[in-house]
Amino acid sequence: MKIQEATLLISSSETDSNLYYATRFLAPDPFIFLQIGDEKVLIMSDLELDRARSEAKVSTILSFSSYEESARKSGTENPGTADIIGEFLRERGIKRVIVPSYFGIRNALLLQEKGHDIEVKQDPFFEQRVIKNNDEIRHIEQALHLTESAVEKAIDYIRQTEIRDGYLYRGNKKVTSEDVKKLIDIYLLENSMIAQHTIVACGEDSSFPHNEGSGALRADAPVIIDVFPRSVKSRYYADITRTVVRGAASDEVKKMFNAVTDAQETAFSMIKDKVNGREVHEAILMHFKNCGFESGEIDGRMQGFFHGTGHGVGLEVHEPPRIGKKTDILCTGHVVTVEPGLYYKGIGGVRLEDMVVVQPDGVINLTKSPKILEI
Amino acid sequence: MKIQEATLLISSSETDSNLYYATRFLAPDPFIFLQIGDEKVLIMSDLELDRARSEAKVSTILSFSSYEESARKSGTENPGTADIIGEFLRERGIKRVIVPSYFGIRNALLLQEKGHDIEVKQDPFFEQRVIKNNDEIRHIEQALHLTESAVEKAIDYIRQTEIRDGYLYRGNKKVTSEDVKKLIDIYLLENSMIAQHTIVACGEDSSFPHNEGSGALRADAPVIIDVFPRSVKSRYYADITRTVVRGAASDEVKKMFNAVTDAQETAFSMIKDKVNGREVHEAILMHFKNCGFESGEIDGRMQGFFHGTGHGVGLEVHEPPRIGKKTDILCTGHVVTVEPGLYYKGIGGVRLEDMVVVQPDGVINLTKSPKILEI
Repeated sequence: MKIQEATLLISSSETDSNLYYATRFLAPDPFIFLQIGDEKVLIMSDLELDRARSEAKVSTILSFSSYEESARKSGTENPGTADIIGEFLRERGIKRVIVPSYFGIRNALLLQEKGHDIEVKQDPFFEQRVIKNNDEIRHIEQALHLTESAVEKAIDYIRQTEIRDGYLYRGNKKVTSEDVKKLIDIYLLENSMIAQHTIVACGEDSSFPHNEGSGALRADAPVIIDVFPRSVKSRYYADITRTVVRGAASDEVKKMFNAVTDAQETAFSMIKDKVNGREVHEAILMHFKNCGFESGEIDGRMQGFFHGTGHGVGLEVHEPPRIGKKTDILCTGHVVTVEPGLYYKGIGGVRLEDMVVVQPDGVINLTKSPKILEI
Repeated sequence: MKIQEATLLISSSETDSNLYYATRFLAPDPFIFLQIGDEKVLIMSDLELDRARSEAKVSTILSFSSYEESARKSGTENPGTADIIGEFLRERGIKRVIVPSYFGIRNALLLQEKGHDIEVKQDPFFEQRVIKNNDEIRHIEQALHLTESAVEKAIDYIRQTEIRDGYLYRGNKKVTSEDVKKLIDIYLLENSMIAQHTIVACGEDSSFPHNEGSGALRADAPVIIDVFPRSVKSRYYADITRTVVRGAASDEVKKMFNAVTDAQETAFSMIKDKVNGREVHEAILMHFKNCGFESGEIDGRMQGFFHGTGHGVGLEVHEPPRIGKKTDILCTGHVVTVEPGLYYKGIGGVRLEDMVVVQPDGVINLTKSPKILEI
């Protein structure tokens, strides 16, 4: 039977992880991917044609320039991407094209004008990408192992500071958030991992979950360390957060730390195949409430617990599934973070984040780093 | 007069440089940006609401959660992004929405279903982004200055190797492509620049323009060094390529190097306000042909000069305008690369790349690094 439809992506595999997942070929500029049944087809620029031939895990590699020429011959003066795809689909006698939700509207309209039916496939575009196979879990574990080493090095560095006048010193120099971030990022780069937006946020900075932190670190105040680098080789991410206090934590911060630790345990005990992420998230919100920690807009600012409990990790650092306010069913083979946190103005934040693999009857926690508040 | 239309972006400013350009706010997850006349509006998740309030250069910051609630009250059970935008547009009485070519088809269709007219604006979405102002040129110059230092350090490192049996040694160890890339990338990271896919490609590897290079470097063979990092702080890129030979270059490689040097000069002499990039590109192709260098598919592989002559650089490493096969008019204030190259099987590649600012009567070359083949 003739296959009547093609799956289509037009993007850069550097930014579109679905395209990298489908081809295992990395290129900075947009290129064309079509899948017809089991046949994967790339249409590549002259620049990338030969590199694609030697690296891409696909069935057929065609030349964009050749199609440009044939489009010109059949009367299109300045053929663009949609014209080239049109030529190809005409050759193959395919009318229906399946695209992801993020497919660019302009090319969709141009293909419709050429008489193609565009069907938008709901996420996940490649169902299989959400379920990690053993190779993928190994890549994630390798990335996480290096990331844990980086975090432990950072914590050791903070532990070895001297406390004077409420600040942390090495010799005569105050230790800053920037110093610790650089230590982490350079260690990771030496190990072929690229970290961006590493968080080392102390005191008030730590009360904003995505504040990256800046300036001198203070004694007796929480420091959130959140590191989520990508492996250059495998392109898989790891994601971990620890919170430490150099010196003595206040009773309030200790109470927050215990509540967050228990929140993680609550999640670990609930997560398994077929569980709804929303129920896990709601249980944690309830747990915090029962511990006396209110969440929501307080004094004109979001405080308490006001982000998701977790997210999938793979070729993206944030990918499906989500453990949050919306229904999302967790399945065996999902790799997700569990990262409850509490944030209060004038006190700071506490967040702990591990990565787990969802199993038929529970989770495997991939993260081994200890959780010790005072150092 | 009431404004009847809104410009709309839904994306992550980490990946959508238009959104970062418009807001100067960096967030990893998608958020909603609307512009109505001069008013810039963000609709943010609870997680990013307060950080956006303190960092984003916009007029109005609204809460996604509040709109979710009002959408639920008006009968939408599980309000999604399009519903939230629908609520906002209804409040403002706006029917027409202007989106970029890459706007996701799914949200476009959902907004159409709500009765909105979707108008796709051709690239460039923000015309002003293509023309760099003085601040932007300063950011690019700062990034380029550090990148040139990194490349010079790499060239010094190669220069200081010992040649034995056709390979480059430091002590008893063969120097590899990976060693030199790490030296470059770590120097850049120490200076708050993130480099990805740095190219240090020797011999046959260098005959593929985007081959990143691997393994031991060889004497008497061309090494292409192409570095294009982003400044963490400003988010602007720099881009530079040099080609060196440790030892003695063959006559063929010398001839290629001279032809590529002259090709750059040809481009510099042609580029100015209102010049068509296509004409510059064609002049270089002609120049190579006149020097006896054929381009195109030869022996089943692309050889000669088979990529563009240059591209814009700014918040993206590849952005408009292009100097290549297609018509694209260069204008005062464009910052573009000029990077002709020649690539032959069995010989290797030579590429030189500088960054220039287009001026009314010529160019200002921002790149100062020398171009010396044999080291």
